[in-house]
Amino acid sequence: MMQKIKLNRVLLAGGTHGNEFTGAFLIKKFEQFPQLISRYSFETQTLLSNPKAFTAGVRYIDKDLNRNFGRQFFGEEELIYYEDLRAREIQQLFARHGKTPADFIVDLHSTTANMGLTLIIDTDDAFTLQLAAYLHSLYPSIKVYNSAGSGRSQDSLRSLARFGLGIEVGPIAQGIVKAELFLKTEALIYSILDYLEKANHREVPLFDQQLTVYHYVKTMDYPRNKSGEIQGMIHPQLQFRDYQALCPGAPIFLSFDGNVITYEESSTVYPIFINEAAYYEKGIAMCITQKQQLTCG
Amino acid sequence: MMQKIKLNRVLLAGGTHGNEFTGAFLIKKFEQFPQLISRYSFETQTLLSNPKAFTAGVRYIDKDLNRNFGRQFFGEEELIYYEDLRAREIQQLFARHGKTPADFIVDLHSTTANMGLTLIIDTDDAFTLQLAAYLHSLYPSIKVYNSAGSGRSQDSLRSLARFGLGIEVGPIAQGIVKAELFLKTEALIYSILDYLEKANHREVPLFDQQLTVYHYVKTMDYPRNKSGEIQGMIHPQLQFRDYQALCPGAPIFLSFDGNVITYEESSTVYPIFINEAAYYEKGIAMCITQKQQLTCG
Repeated sequence: MMQKIKLNRVLLAGGTHGNEFTGAFLIKKFEQFPQLISRYSFETQTLLSNPKAFTAGVRYIDKDLNRNFGRQFFGEEELIYYEDLRAREIQQLFARHGKTPADFIVDLHSTTANMGLTLIIDTDDAFTLQLAAYLHSLYPSIKVYNSAGSGRSQDSLRSLARFGLGIEVGPIAQGIVKAELFLKTEALIYSILDYLEKANHREVPLFDQQLTVYHYVKTMDYPRNKSGEIQGMIHPQLQFRDYQALCPGAPIFLSFDGNVITYEESSTVYPIFINEAAYYEKGIAMCITQKQQLTCG
Repeated sequence: MMQKIKLNRVLLAGGTHGNEFTGAFLIKKFEQFPQLISRYSFETQTLLSNPKAFTAGVRYIDKDLNRNFGRQFFGEEELIYYEDLRAREIQQLFARHGKTPADFIVDLHSTTANMGLTLIIDTDDAFTLQLAAYLHSLYPSIKVYNSAGSGRSQDSLRSLARFGLGIEVGPIAQGIVKAELFLKTEALIYSILDYLEKANHREVPLFDQQLTVYHYVKTMDYPRNKSGEIQGMIHPQLQFRDYQALCPGAPIFLSFDGNVITYEESSTVYPIFINEAAYYEKGIAMCITQKQQLTCG
């Protein structure tokens, strides 16, 4: 049963992490060729979210912008961090009570993990799931990750709008563009905009409504010593195996001195963000997910 | 004809670029288990070259340390950049007239380009070439890159000693460790130390003396607009094809607006460092090399 939803403004954001170049250069392309993203029934806006970090080629200047939304910002004199200033500016424009509120936000990210093209959703409302199922019918290799529980539904840029999606592509090193993933991400964005246009006209196409969704459960850290220094690395048998079943007893880490550390919990899980560079400092070696089969619609 | 060379001190350096974690974590391992790198006929020392950059997870704090050697440093008051201070400290210890001069330096690097295990040599003296040929006989997939002409023979950390090698491994994102490449680099280091031990005893083993060496010719930049902004990316057909023949007319870049840019020079070359993240800011999309077949000894 299709919901009656009218979207007036769609925001495409990239460079929310300044060293994730795929999204940043796509936003620059769309700024140069706005006809590529314009549709009849809604306005499309673009945002290079963290321009200072993009210029510097770093994830952030002072703090992670994509953990910095959904809260009150105080007076000018209290905003000493660049990402606080930037989050306030973005909220004042695109949040629900902002000057030009966005009804739908697509935020473009990349990862050093082997996550292919991943749609990150933060809710399981019917509209979002139907969109995800539609995109999956077009691009069968796409994965869908529900990050509700990770905190991103409250503090991410995409959480500012009623509806939103993160796009995560990898594996790709920070600070580079890989043409193949650039082109795939670009095609996916056009498909999202086309779908939103059809949804506004209540002409959502027919498609396979079976969908696999990976749900965030928790994170797992690297082995560390008492001083907090990392003592091992992702085991070669786990590296690049995002979204594949991790069974009890399987190797997960190889310590620098040669010991294998195995997965010792009782149930099979599906790790993602395996060996994501930006997560070393966050104490995250991988995110653990559980797999769910859904029938949408 | 084997040269009579006696090495008294070998320096293993890593983290010269702070976000190249393979080398940094190997150095930390060797600090913890010095017996792994100790040999009878010479002293082995380790150096985490840029500890501040390693802690911050960045290539450098103020300037690229591995372009910062081989010159005079002035008084304390003139050293406002961290890498100037650090280069002076390292020179005062390990350069030829330093307190504990190194006769051989191995400096550990990683790259986002698909360079596998690469030995970087800066000279073509017989001792270095024989070592390279020996390592190639043990690890046939190793590539040998002669960077003379790139400037590294004058300004790199390894240039402080009479003999030296860079080890470059990839593809690997900045800020992560990939176990497979960590283990391969570690094995290569032990083989280098074993060879140097034998060389000190004039017991260099027999091996295949045929060697392919890739010589630095020049760098090639990304397409840019008048403001210097990048306008394209490595063409998908060139991405990951380091050390493979690039023929006149072959695609090298894909502009963001969809145009293919081809290689328009007259001779076949062998590009390396294709899409190295750290080189975007240096105006380098790849390094062009020429291939040479050598018979050593």
